[in-house]
Amino acid sequence: MVGQQLVAQLVNHPWFQLTWIAGSERSEGRRYGELPWRLAGRVPNEIAKRSVERARPGAAPQLVFSALDAAVAAELETAFATAGHAVVSNARNFRMDPAVPLLIPEINPDHLGLVPIQQKRKKWRGAIITNPNCSTVFLSMALAALREFQVKRVLVTTLQAVSGAGYPGVSALDMLGNVLPSIEGEEEKIEAETRKILGRLEGESVMMHPLEISAQATRVPVADGHTEAVSVELEQRVSCEEILEAFREFSGAPQLCGLPSAPDPPLEYHEEVNRPQPRLDAETNGGMAVHIGRLRPCPVLGYKFILLGHNTIRGAAGAALLNAELLAAREMV
Amino acid sequence: MVGQQLVAQLVNHPWFQLTWIAGSERSEGRRYGELPWRLAGRVPNEIAKRSVERARPGAAPQLVFSALDAAVAAELETAFATAGHAVVSNARNFRMDPAVPLLIPEINPDHLGLVPIQQKRKKWRGAIITNPNCSTVFLSMALAALREFQVKRVLVTTLQAVSGAGYPGVSALDMLGNVLPSIEGEEEKIEAETRKILGRLEGESVMMHPLEISAQATRVPVADGHTEAVSVELEQRVSCEEILEAFREFSGAPQLCGLPSAPDPPLEYHEEVNRPQPRLDAETNGGMAVHIGRLRPCPVLGYKFILLGHNTIRGAAGAALLNAELLAAREMV
Amino acid sequence: MVGQQLVAQLVNHPWFQLTWIAGSERSEGRRYGELPWRLAGRVPNEIAKRSVERARPGAAPQLVFSALDAAVAAELETAFATAGHAVVSNARNFRMDPAVPLLIPEINPDHLGLVPIQQKRKKWRGAIITNPNCSTVFLSMALAALREFQVKRVLVTTLQAVSGAGYPGVSALDMLGNVLPSIEGEEEKIEAETRKILGRLEGESVMMHPLEISAQATRVPVADGHTEAVSVELEQRVSCEEILEAFREFSGAPQLCGLPSAPDPPLEYHEEVNRPQPRLDAETNGGMAVHIGRLRPCPVLGYKFILLGHNTIRGAAGAALLNAELLAAREMV
Amino acid sequence: MVGQQLVAQLVNHPWFQLTWIAGSERSEGRRYGELPWRLAGRVPNEIAKRSVERARPGAAPQLVFSALDAAVAAELETAFATAGHAVVSNARNFRMDPAVPLLIPEINPDHLGLVPIQQKRKKWRGAIITNPNCSTVFLSMALAALREFQVKRVLVTTLQAVSGAGYPGVSALDMLGNVLPSIEGEEEKIEAETRKILGRLEGESVMMHPLEISAQATRVPVADGHTEAVSVELEQRVSCEEILEAFREFSGAPQLCGLPSAPDPPLEYHEEVNRPQPRLDAETNGGMAVHIGRLRPCPVLGYKFILLGHNTIRGAAGAALLNAELLAAREMV
Repeated sequence: MVGQQLVAQLVNHPWFQLTWIAGSERSEGRRYGELPWRLAGRVPNEIAKRSVERARPGAAPQLVFSALDAAVAAELETAFATAGHAVVSNARNFRMDPAVPLLIPEINPDHLGLVPIQQKRKKWRGAIITNPNCSTVFLSMALAALREFQVKRVLVTTLQAVSGAGYPGVSALDMLGNVLPSIEGEEEKIEAETRKILGRLEGESVMMHPLEISAQATRVPVADGHTEAVSVELEQRVSCEEILEAFREFSGAPQLCGLPSAPDPPLEYHEEVNRPQPRLDAETNGGMAVHIGRLRPCPVLGYKFILLGHNTIRGAAGAALLNAELLAAREMV
Repeated sequence: MVGQQLVAQLVNHPWFQLTWIAGSERSEGRRYGELPWRLAGRVPNEIAKRSVERARPGAAPQLVFSALDAAVAAELETAFATAGHAVVSNARNFRMDPAVPLLIPEINPDHLGLVPIQQKRKKWRGAIITNPNCSTVFLSMALAALREFQVKRVLVTTLQAVSGAGYPGVSALDMLGNVLPSIEGEEEKIEAETRKILGRLEGESVMMHPLEISAQATRVPVADGHTEAVSVELEQRVSCEEILEAFREFSGAPQLCGLPSAPDPPLEYHEEVNRPQPRLDAETNGGMAVHIGRLRPCPVLGYKFILLGHNTIRGAAGAALLNAELLAAREMV
Repeated sequence: MVGQQLVAQLVNHPWFQLTWIAGSERSEGRRYGELPWRLAGRVPNEIAKRSVERARPGAAPQLVFSALDAAVAAELETAFATAGHAVVSNARNFRMDPAVPLLIPEINPDHLGLVPIQQKRKKWRGAIITNPNCSTVFLSMALAALREFQVKRVLVTTLQAVSGAGYPGVSALDMLGNVLPSIEGEEEKIEAETRKILGRLEGESVMMHPLEISAQATRVPVADGHTEAVSVELEQRVSCEEILEAFREFSGAPQLCGLPSAPDPPLEYHEEVNRPQPRLDAETNGGMAVHIGRLRPCPVLGYKFILLGHNTIRGAAGAALLNAELLAAREMV
Repeated sequence: MVGQQLVAQLVNHPWFQLTWIAGSERSEGRRYGELPWRLAGRVPNEIAKRSVERARPGAAPQLVFSALDAAVAAELETAFATAGHAVVSNARNFRMDPAVPLLIPEINPDHLGLVPIQQKRKKWRGAIITNPNCSTVFLSMALAALREFQVKRVLVTTLQAVSGAGYPGVSALDMLGNVLPSIEGEEEKIEAETRKILGRLEGESVMMHPLEISAQATRVPVADGHTEAVSVELEQRVSCEEILEAFREFSGAPQLCGLPSAPDPPLEYHEEVNRPQPRLDAETNGGMAVHIGRLRPCPVLGYKFILLGHNTIRGAAGAALLNAELLAAREMV
């Protein structure tokens, strides 16, 4: 799903040109158009006739995107990085590696400072840049807007869409009219990745942000768009108006540099009490904004609100693309 | 929905006999079988031919159940209580009235001590007994099992089924493949009612339990069964095993007195990581048990777990019925 | 729903400019942006500030679109037509009126010849042009492509989306994980309207097409996109290849005149055995194409296939817009 | 799914006792309770501790049920039949074998006359009895009631539930808010099996019923319960009342012999225009009745109506069980 979403977003991209598509041995040599296309509509014509190459560094362009399965990503991405490629990866393998940036351009573009460090330590001529787990992206964006008030404790319950599980992913029998009360590995990712993303690069490593965080992840019968119910405790006692203001003014490198995939604004606040909703809001603005609503006092932690983001776009393919655009803007590719 | 569920549960009840059905003027005089039946299957034969009476005290039996809309419940229930009827109500109007028991027989059967007080204060010859809002029932049951460890703070996110909104309730266009991020009035009910239910009857009133509680309520595309993601802080530092033990040993008046609708056990713990689920678990055991799963440490509050209950049974019609059974067991009707 | 879809499609329309929005007394004087917007995203900014006018001929522009409820459409549309407006209507009231064109520009643009007849007979200075019921549009488009082989008998089962029922429309409780086996009035509309659309204008009236047709209409838990399972008997014995060719070559006035909303091709045939699907195909190409798949022999009637169309676009708002574009191209407005 | 449904129905069966459960090598030796249980609730306690045996004739009881995958059913069922077991099978492999009964006890109990023929021809000491494909069961039951009027032509569109595809079966991404317009092999099965079931046993073989039949099979987001839209042409011109009467009076061997799983009546006609519905009707009466509604004239073939049946009960596990009960009643096991 993420690979196809990437292909869809790279067609007609103003900066990048899709010159090379690689897959597993099984698909090697086949036309991309012969592989089953899971997104709406059809595989773009100009891509359909491309041959799928073998995924190895040789003939690949300098910048490569990886939507590889975690089972093979570690080895393959290392091979590409070693051979000099800039690997912009959606896989989870290197996200928590101390030398690898877990990048959200609006939040921690300075973590790109890890690149020379990883090159030195790992003897890579290229680099690996990762984007976070989908649920983590949306939460981190909202928390980043609150950094000035010092985030202390966070509780989040996610209501995640099925496209996040890939294809075939979840069985329809499990999902129709049902809630699945767990998603393997998801809570740990949210809890760990958020602290790295919000952490400070000091010397040669990222200091994990000291916030306490706890996640409960559930799966709901929604195709695209993860909803999150968040409660936050801040060191500083501020009004909901000040928080709202912080959400509205939040902006970062993508907006400043005018990256082609940058949402503007990156956080979209909804005044209506029954918004944001996955079906109505996730895909607007190209699916790259994070939607917030229902900001109000939390009797336990201080503040609570609802988050929504498009999991395969802002939470995966679009996140990788924005990372690559930042690399390009900084002339790192 | 709740009225029909009650009718379905009163057919073949070992203690009670359904002798009188009343409705609004619009349905007065019609056969019950002519009104649209929203539950699976058909209206029970022996009930279908009954005439629907006008809802007024006159010819009503001593014990009446009220599934009235809040817009009319206050006035009508008062009329019945004044005239000497025991009103077992699912409406929200009197739930937070200091003289009215907000009853969950497993938790606070002693709150029935409010009955003589309400009769004195309100000059009722009868009485009004209420059951809580659906989401509150499930949460309170779990928290009651933890009372011995002193519950201090609770955060809950609910994923509620559409049957809780009545009929026609939520529009299919709003609900298909979607999450609605708010339910009017629900969070306030959960936050207030839980503290009353767990409160102590002292003298002539119930002291609200001092716990801090915050709820976020969402609606998901599920027919029956509310899921809740709960985090709890306890005064006492205990192990997850002790909590699990507390859940497993939890029991109360309904189990002790053998009330016909009492679930046994009242809290059913699921070991599997992907349970409980609405479609698989909500309706088992007659829909009267509260299901718990995924108990584990919460990095922020100490403990977290998943709850599930059948909203129109244990959360409404069955809750009222169990209340009436307790009244009968105590010879209060 | 249809009115909002129309508004969305008229913003940035190359030929038309939205200058006037009218509604019921209840919404008169309010800003359009204050009314609840049911489509994805938000009401377009330039429209949100518009005042909603009272629906009466006075200040209205010459060309008006009507997405009125059938309960009021007859009277209001007559008033507008009498006052000289060209009313392009999605309401069902005048569809079967012998003097009113039931127009699908690809099929029967010559039925516009009824306009002078209706003006004479009804003493209208303006005119009323209608588009068919949603399911009828998709079926008629496919049958029109087969006209050369003389369509004799048609059996169709529809699996219709909930957006076709308006808002709030169908209850989520009725629709989640369910099929509703009837849709009021739908089968009659399909059976009658199809014969008028395919009929020949002779002198002052349209001769109903002699085909025999039977429809079964069901509602399924799909947001947008009606699926239809069709079996057809033709007078002429042709091969499936010839039919496929006819589908592929089908084209009409909108494609010829380059109407801005014309789909090209109007019928899109899908080779894959599991296509077309509502979620993947209904909205592609702006939602204006009719999708066909699974053409194969029918052991009973000769040929069978699957149809799909976007019910609120090609089946309603887009159908009206295309009709208006044809009027404009023919300088009738 | 079918195997588990069978297990659930055999617990507490008045005639049969579940003494032996066999599975693939992978599950051999494991406790049945350790295997994932996909039905609501939990695996019955008395079954959970049973060891799963290897599926081979040796220690098996005389009567065995087969819910085997088609890939292995042919070989294994032959081995059991050869070894003297009565195999009551839900697999498709032998359904169209001229010597194997494709049995629906209400319709063709006399087809059991094939058993001595198969034993002779195939040198089996035991026997194989099959039940039809789920959609075929419901359609055949309705058509059997119309046999007296001579069924000539049948067109059916099915809207099938996901449980019919087994587990994990259909991907949630394909099914949420969607219709799948094809089900592999389903249409062919319906078209062929119906004619065998309604056929007459003459001498040593079943003469296929001469009716012409065409099916279109679709998958809809429903958990359990297949809906079918049927049009029928009869040789005899009868009124809808006569057909209704035929549906209502339809009955057969299971009702006559009082088989424990026999639904009574086997065909349940619903007067309401919006019934039957999968969520409200499929599971009533133990899921063994076939539900009919909306009988009305069909302008093309004469008569049309809606069918509904529970696909894993009456359409699979319950069908097999009823077949076994008939064998037992006839002392064939």
